[in-house]
Amino acid sequence: MTLRLRPILAEALGTAALTATVIGSGIMADTLSPDDGVALLGNTLATAAMLYLLITTLGPVSGAQFNPVVSLVCLLRHHLTLPLFGAYLLAQIAGGLSGVALAHAMFDLPLWQHGLTPRHGPGQWLSEGVASFGLIATILAGQSTRGNTAALVAAYIAAAYWFTASTSFANPAVTLARAFTGTFSGIRLADTPAFALAQIAGALLAAFLLPWLLERPRQ
Amino acid sequence: MTLRLRPILAEALGTAALTATVIGSGIMADTLSPDDGVALLGNTLATAAMLYLLITTLGPVSGAQFNPVVSLVCLLRHHLTLPLFGAYLLAQIAGGLSGVALAHAMFDLPLWQHGLTPRHGPGQWLSEGVASFGLIATILAGQSTRGNTAALVAAYIAAAYWFTASTSFANPAVTLARAFTGTFSGIRLADTPAFALAQIAGALLAAFLLPWLLERPRQ
Amino acid sequence: MTLRLRPILAEALGTAALTATVIGSGIMADTLSPDDGVALLGNTLATAAMLYLLITTLGPVSGAQFNPVVSLVCLLRHHLTLPLFGAYLLAQIAGGLSGVALAHAMFDLPLWQHGLTPRHGPGQWLSEGVASFGLIATILAGQSTRGNTAALVAAYIAAAYWFTASTSFANPAVTLARAFTGTFSGIRLADTPAFALAQIAGALLAAFLLPWLLERPRQ
Amino acid sequence: MTLRLRPILAEALGTAALTATVIGSGIMADTLSPDDGVALLGNTLATAAMLYLLITTLGPVSGAQFNPVVSLVCLLRHHLTLPLFGAYLLAQIAGGLSGVALAHAMFDLPLWQHGLTPRHGPGQWLSEGVASFGLIATILAGQSTRGNTAALVAAYIAAAYWFTASTSFANPAVTLARAFTGTFSGIRLADTPAFALAQIAGALLAAFLLPWLLERPRQ
Repeated sequence: MTLRLRPILAEALGTAALTATVIGSGIMADTLSPDDGVALLGNTLATAAMLYLLITTLGPVSGAQFNPVVSLVCLLRHHLTLPLFGAYLLAQIAGGLSGVALAHAMFDLPLWQHGLTPRHGPGQWLSEGVASFGLIATILAGQSTRGNTAALVAAYIAAAYWFTASTSFANPAVTLARAFTGTFSGIRLADTPAFALAQIAGALLAAFLLPWLLERPRQ
Repeated sequence: MTLRLRPILAEALGTAALTATVIGSGIMADTLSPDDGVALLGNTLATAAMLYLLITTLGPVSGAQFNPVVSLVCLLRHHLTLPLFGAYLLAQIAGGLSGVALAHAMFDLPLWQHGLTPRHGPGQWLSEGVASFGLIATILAGQSTRGNTAALVAAYIAAAYWFTASTSFANPAVTLARAFTGTFSGIRLADTPAFALAQIAGALLAAFLLPWLLERPRQ
Repeated sequence: MTLRLRPILAEALGTAALTATVIGSGIMADTLSPDDGVALLGNTLATAAMLYLLITTLGPVSGAQFNPVVSLVCLLRHHLTLPLFGAYLLAQIAGGLSGVALAHAMFDLPLWQHGLTPRHGPGQWLSEGVASFGLIATILAGQSTRGNTAALVAAYIAAAYWFTASTSFANPAVTLARAFTGTFSGIRLADTPAFALAQIAGALLAAFLLPWLLERPRQ
Repeated sequence: MTLRLRPILAEALGTAALTATVIGSGIMADTLSPDDGVALLGNTLATAAMLYLLITTLGPVSGAQFNPVVSLVCLLRHHLTLPLFGAYLLAQIAGGLSGVALAHAMFDLPLWQHGLTPRHGPGQWLSEGVASFGLIATILAGQSTRGNTAALVAAYIAAAYWFTASTSFANPAVTLARAFTGTFSGIRLADTPAFALAQIAGALLAAFLLPWLLERPRQ
């Protein structure tokens, strides 16, 4: 059994770019504006644009998952083998941690820091469950209707940054990476396991419900 | 006569997602920013993105109406049977009320609350009539020109949030649901019947005028 | 010689919708936000979305010109007859004045008012010339490359609201209409003739230069 | 050997329009808003929209490069001859300087000014290297996947304005031009050579790595 290197590197590169975008735009926005609503607008715009770009360009290389819960759903649906799932998971985590360092280096900050923002409690966990349910639902529905998945995922995350109380992390690898920044978009390391569990739960629920909902009526 | 369950559930799910987006993004925006213009920008971005997503993905399942006046126009144009119209209406109302509860739960607020914002008077009613006229006109024109209805409706609502004095509710089910939130996007329950009447009036006017306007010249 | 009624009504309706969007979103933005940058963001978003929508849906009916300088260029390029140009011009002016009244009525304001904002001087006139040059260049280049003219024009106006000193009126019918509002987006009536002249000059320059620039090399 | 005039003029015109948009929208945003986050939102929106427009419409004429590092990569990939590269370079520089003057003229400011904003140090240089790496990666990946390059580049620059510490100049000709404005988007002339070097380094890295990463597995 051999794993091809290119898709795995594409997952690492894409997750690094996504993480650097989330964290870098958070630092930029927080520095420029005293208004947290304006900061979230900048954060949203940058993240949605980067997702559209990365999914369009790296989709043909690796599937453009950049997210362990997306890879988990692909594993369950037999679109990824277990060894490739493992390799993607490691690539996503390594990519996330690299992306944090890159964003910090661009802003002349220490490469890895302690996340300080407490994010816990029922509302936050529900938010992450809902956010991840919606993300998987969007991806599955996009595939089912042959829509433009890159545009759909970008639109989904733009909305979810605003309608969830947690600003929609919805990605265990990026969540872990964000525990290594003390800036706008950070999270306390101790709060990450519950976030990851909520994300997995939401994703699994979507993976079981959506295929039924999307099945076309036979005529 | 049998009604298929999937489309009805899709209407409930889509209306819930739309309502949760409108209300959740309103809470988020209002919490983050002291500037109501910034708040409406966040609200607009989230709602337009979610509409684009929901119409693209659920359109093939149920028609992605999520709105009693849209369903009413479909009924009049013989695209919905009366029983299915009734089922859609109930699904949309139930979806809206569920969406309110979901948004509130994510923000650790009481699930259902009293809407407090007074919204009445000739300007508001005219705004809702115009908003609903425009929505139906957009949908009919999109179908007539085989445009991307999801993108057109998202663009329309983004504009209508700003050019109408009421921020364009344009949907009786979501209007009713918004009477159950005391947050940014709420409305007093007593003000909802006039809103619904204005919405129905605007929608009917568009349903009668647009087909004539859009008819292509015979050559 | 007979003129068909539908295209002429579509020009009036489209210009009314465009004008109501410009003025209504200006009132909304100015009311909600103390920050004129935020107000211009709301104004830009609403106008660009409405242009995308109107050009997509009414393009097949009337060409979706909504603008005397666009119609003038069509006349010069023999895409409009002189009588139809005259009818479009009247429809656009009537549509603009109706749109002002509609926007004001939604916000419970007097239907027609005196524009108070002085807009004159070399920078403003140059801005209008540049804005109109760019608009005609965009339309001609969009037709030449078979691009999505609706998306291109929306993108152009979104940019031009910000890079010109005049916020890019670029439309004599809408300029005249904006002389009838005392709100955010108004202009003094005395300043409108110079704006219209600058718009015509910029449009004519583009109409003569662009066809040469865009001609494909023969191979 | 003859060089065709049209593509060279298209490069000059496009770079002028891009530069005028960057600088004009910066002046407008800075004038309207006390909040630098709001100003960057306006700047981002205008620049991304203009890039989408220019690449779509002038792509068929000249390749819509508007950027010496893009032209350099085309030269290395044998898509440009050396004489045409030289002509493009001069056109881009002349276009940039013309665009500055045009923006200043529209805002009634002296045509050329001294850039005052210091932009130097490791974070800024790294940012420019990353920004240019990403731009070339986006273009090469867009070509490889036959995506909409205009939309991808616009999305990339929208994100890069926010996730890099330098707001992503990523273009030596526009960087030089921005040394001639004392407004929001300016840069000190003395800081431009290091920016250009970082941009070239990032672009070359992408030009060597991406073709390998994007090569499809043979099946």
